[in-house]
Formats: sequence, structure tokens, C-alpha cells
Amino acid sequence: MLNADKSNVILVTHRFSGNSHAAGKYASTDAAAGYWDSIIGPGKALDTSKYFIISSDALVNINPKDPKIITTGPLSIDPETGKPYGTNFPVVTYRDFVRVQKALLDSMGISELVAVAGPSAGAMQALQWAADYPQVVHRVLAVISPGLSTPAYTIGVFNGWASPILMDPKWNQGQYTAETAPTDGLANAFKAVTISTVDFAWAEKVFGVQPADPLKLPTASIMHPFLIEAKLQAGCQAKTTFGDANSFLYMVRASQTFNVETQVSNIKARVLFISSATDSLFPVHLVDSAAQKINAAGGSAKISVLTGVGGHLVGILNITNASAEITDFLSQ
Amino acid sequence: MLNADKSNVILVTHRFSGNSHAAGKYASTDAAAGYWDSIIGPGKALDTSKYFIISSDALVNINPKDPKIITTGPLSIDPETGKPYGTNFPVVTYRDFVRVQKALLDSMGISELVAVAGPSAGAMQALQWAADYPQVVHRVLAVISPGLSTPAYTIGVFNGWASPILMDPKWNQGQYTAETAPTDGLANAFKAVTISTVDFAWAEKVFGVQPADPLKLPTASIMHPFLIEAKLQAGCQAKTTFGDANSFLYMVRASQTFNVETQVSNIKARVLFISSATDSLFPVHLVDSAAQKINAAGGSAKISVLTGVGGHLVGILNITNASAEITDFLSQ
Repeated sequence: MLNADKSNVILVTHRFSGNSHAAGKYASTDAAAGYWDSIIGPGKALDTSKYFIISSDALVNINPKDPKIITTGPLSIDPETGKPYGTNFPVVTYRDFVRVQKALLDSMGISELVAVAGPSAGAMQALQWAADYPQVVHRVLAVISPGLSTPAYTIGVFNGWASPILMDPKWNQGQYTAETAPTDGLANAFKAVTISTVDFAWAEKVFGVQPADPLKLPTASIMHPFLIEAKLQAGCQAKTTFGDANSFLYMVRASQTFNVETQVSNIKARVLFISSATDSLFPVHLVDSAAQKINAAGGSAKISVLTGVGGHLVGILNITNASAEITDFLSQ
Repeated sequence: MLNADKSNVILVTHRFSGNSHAAGKYASTDAAAGYWDSIIGPGKALDTSKYFIISSDALVNINPKDPKIITTGPLSIDPETGKPYGTNFPVVTYRDFVRVQKALLDSMGISELVAVAGPSAGAMQALQWAADYPQVVHRVLAVISPGLSTPAYTIGVFNGWASPILMDPKWNQGQYTAETAPTDGLANAFKAVTISTVDFAWAEKVFGVQPADPLKLPTASIMHPFLIEAKLQAGCQAKTTFGDANSFLYMVRASQTFNVETQVSNIKARVLFISSATDSLFPVHLVDSAAQKINAAGGSAKISVLTGVGGHLVGILNITNASAEITDFLSQ
């Protein structure tokens, strides 16, 4: 519950393909709870009996067709034309994401944050908050983070994620309708994200090396998939129900432009980086460098490393293993 | 020079997007020497004053339009139709690659090999040699190798490499001519290979984080690229002059099916794995596991790890740092 002086707020910011559903279920019949349910709730690390947790959908959220998601982006209606903005939507950055969140908090009369906490793109937003509003943010919990900016290499990785959309003729330079949307390109883009965010052990555990269909061996035709190929394809095709290709491209660009390197001396918030030892998307050496820069600039940053199967996703799947450390961090 | 009893031969096998040009220049005006020139030559690790080095282009080489490359694959003419096989070409595996190389050696009267040596896909072929022809192969030099099989995760990574080709409408289920070839898809596929085989430090050193054109900022339009995006795109577009999309898909499938796990007890050759500490495509833990399995089966395998900027490509770029170790390995 929000306390009387509105000083017990934690803002939770979501990842690239995520949304504001961070904890709990909307309905008891829901298959899964929010992505960080293991650390958000009464008595958990982000203890809802102490803290008032706020999470909103980011600008250019890539699943704008999800009826539960509230966002503004390429699929929003341009009032001048009565049609979706498409690629006429302006490029936005994490600085814009954070400004929208600031306006939300302002509208609620909230002027300080116990912490901004998020995984991956959420960690970037949390650091952007600390850099842009140092008087507001007391702590940053940056989980599976690339540090203070998106590295050149990662800009290239994100380019690869976008590639299947740009290749899909239905993308048509961003001009498409709900009926003609480039769903194949988007499905393959989601697949690229998935592969970037898991690891060897996860793939071995979940799929192993086997054909999708024992009667259609991969050695008989290049079009006969392995199990991992077929399952990722089907799972990612399903994600196109709510996903939007242009929004994906805008989120890629926002993610490529993240950079608070020159603002490092603004970061007054205490920072806890929690990374995953098996993360190849944002390996631990990136936050080593970021923590050094923050500390060298007079700030306070420390690092904790999670282990486990899942690569980048360990920051979601195994975050409960950092519960005691997070509780401690928030209490200091 | 080949000695009298033809017992001084080393076979060098090439990587995914490579070819038989392992050392030297074809003409003094060539821009670059062969990929392993730093370790192949008189007095070098693969000492041509001692050893007779043979290298041939693999089956389904992905650059069949290079006039210097001799291969058989989807672009070869099907004698029954007088047209390229296209996707009627049978799926081939590294076992087939090795059988072709064996036939080449047989035709030369060579019945033993001092070593089979190669980087990446070349390392897979070298291990396939040891598994299939244990009486022929005395040593395996497996550089930047995935170990004894392509892991499930890597099968997914390779699927992502193929994805832009499959999305390109010009691919047209593999039915295209030289004039209608899916060059955009192929360029993006080459780009995916490039990103998989370099690392953070390489991208920072070569490109850094900057716009391709200072007058076209990435924050002004999603179509304004960063430098790394524009340079990789241009470099990979250039590779489509010699590259062929169907051949790329066949090489992907061959690479996905590599598996000598069940043949491990056949491996009588002494094996030296040389990996790169910054390799995220085939990280060192893969060869740790492979060496353990070979040694547990009564074979002899050891591991050496290179450091340096370049990720997977360190096995090409910095291989000279392993020269003494390779010389020693070959002399024992």
C-alpha cells in the first residue's frame, strides 16, 4: 500500500519483449503469474507489505495487440490521418520511456523512489532513471544488464533480431494492415531473441538433439526441422498474435541507443547489478566495467552473479536466488 | 613435398564460409594470403619443409560462384535436367565431406595422415575423419571446435543464420536463377554468421558506437544505421558475388547434423583442441566435455586456450600464438 508520504514506491521496468505484468495473476485461471512473481509479493524480496510496487507498459511495447497492454507506438492511431503511425512514428529512446514513467508518477504525486528495478531492457531503464532523475531515485536494481550503454557488438546483435522482419516482403517498408502484417518475419525475429537469451544447457535440457518428427529425418531434407527448430518456430509464431513488427523495430532502435556513459557522475543512486554467469547476451564483464565507472565517479555500485541453466533468462527464472541480497540492498 | 612413402601428409579442412585457400597467395597482387598463412609454410607450425599439406573445397561450399572454388552442391548441374539441382540436391553431412576427401587421398595413393587440422567446421571434419578412418589419422588438430557433436543450442543458432534466406521472397523455395537469386537474404545470413563469430572487444575496436553517417542520426529514423550495421551490411552484400543461398542452407544442415558422440571409442588419433576464451559460438566448456569423453574412452585429448580480441575468429586471427604447441603436438 502507498504510505502517507508516498515514500515507499518501487518502480519495476520491463524487458524487451515483456510488459507490466510483473507479479501475480490477473485471473485465478491464468496459466502463469507475472515474470518476477518469485520476488514480488508479501514477504518476498520486493515486499508488497512494505513497498508499493508500480509497473507500466513501456513506450513502443512490442505486443500492442495484447488487450492488457497500454502503450503508444507505431500501431497507435495518428489523429491527423486516422490510421496507425507506422514508420511515421518518431524514434523513441529509453530517455523517453523514463519521461513517460515520470509523468505517471507525477500524476500520482510520487516524487521519490525507493528503487527502480528491472531485468535486461528494464535494467537499462532503471539506470536511465538514475542518470536523468538523480534526486528521485535512491536505488537501482539492474538485473542482467549491459552496463551503462549498449555496446557496439550488441547493436549488431539487435540488428540481426530485426533482420527477418526487414526481409519479409509483407513488412513493405512498414506499410501493412492487420490483415497483411509480416507475421513470418516477426516470428523469426522473436526466434532470434529467444536464441540470444538462453544457453547451451537450457537447449539441451528442453529439446536435446533430435528430429521434430522421427519419420522426417533432418538428413532426408533441408526442410525437415530438428525439434528445437520446430518448437521455437511454433512458439514464436504464436507470439505474433499480440506482437507488431514495426513496434519490434522501434524497440530495437530504442535498445540500440541506450547510453548513459556521459551521465555517470549523475548516478547518485546505489546500484546493485545482478548478472547471470551463463549470459552471452550481456556477459558479466560488461557490468564489471560499468560498476568500476560508477564507483570511480563517486557513486556506489556492486555486482552479484547468479548461476543456473538459462543464460540471460536466469535473471528471470532464478531471480529468487538473489532474494536475500535484494532484501538487504533495499533495507540499507 | 610429398615424401617417398607418402607418410608426411597433413589434410587441412576449412570452415563454414571458407575454402581451400589456407596459405599463400594465388598471385602476388592478392590482397590477402590464405586464412592460416601464419601457421602454414616453411618453418611454420604446419611446416611445409617437413609436411605435404593438402586442402580441398568441401562439398556444398557456400561460395560456389568463386571461380577458384571446386565443389559439388545445389548450384551444380543435374545431368537429368541440365539445370542446377537446387533443393533437389541430397542433404549431405560431414561424413560425406570426409568421404570425398578420402577419395581424393586414395586417388593420390595416400593412406595415412600425420594430422587432419581445421578451424570450426574444419575441426568437425577433422574429428569426423578420426571417427570414420581411425587407421588413417594419427592426429587431430581441432581449432575453435564444438567438440564431438553440434549441440542443440547451436542447431538453433544455425537455424537463425538460415532465417533471412528463408524469409527472402526471392529464395522462392529454392527455385531461383542467377538473375533472381535471393542476395538480400544471403547477405543477412552472412551478417548473422559474422556477429556469431566475433566478440564485444572486436566490435568496439573496429566500429565503436557511432552513426554510419553523422548527418543521419539513428535517433532520427529507424532506417538510419549505426556504423556497425552499415559496414556489416555492405561487407556481407559484397559476399553475395560468390555466395549461393541454397548452398548456405545445405551447409547449415550439414553443420547441424555433425555428431560423432557414438563413435568416440573409434577415435585413436591424438587430439589437440585449441579454443578461444572469448568464443561464444563454441565456448571452451564444449571441448572440456569432449576431451573428457575421448580420454574416458581410452583416447588421448588435450586442450589449449587462446586469448585475444575476436571471439570465435581468434582461432584464425591469433592461431600463430599456438605455433609452438602445434609444432610440439605434431612432433610427438
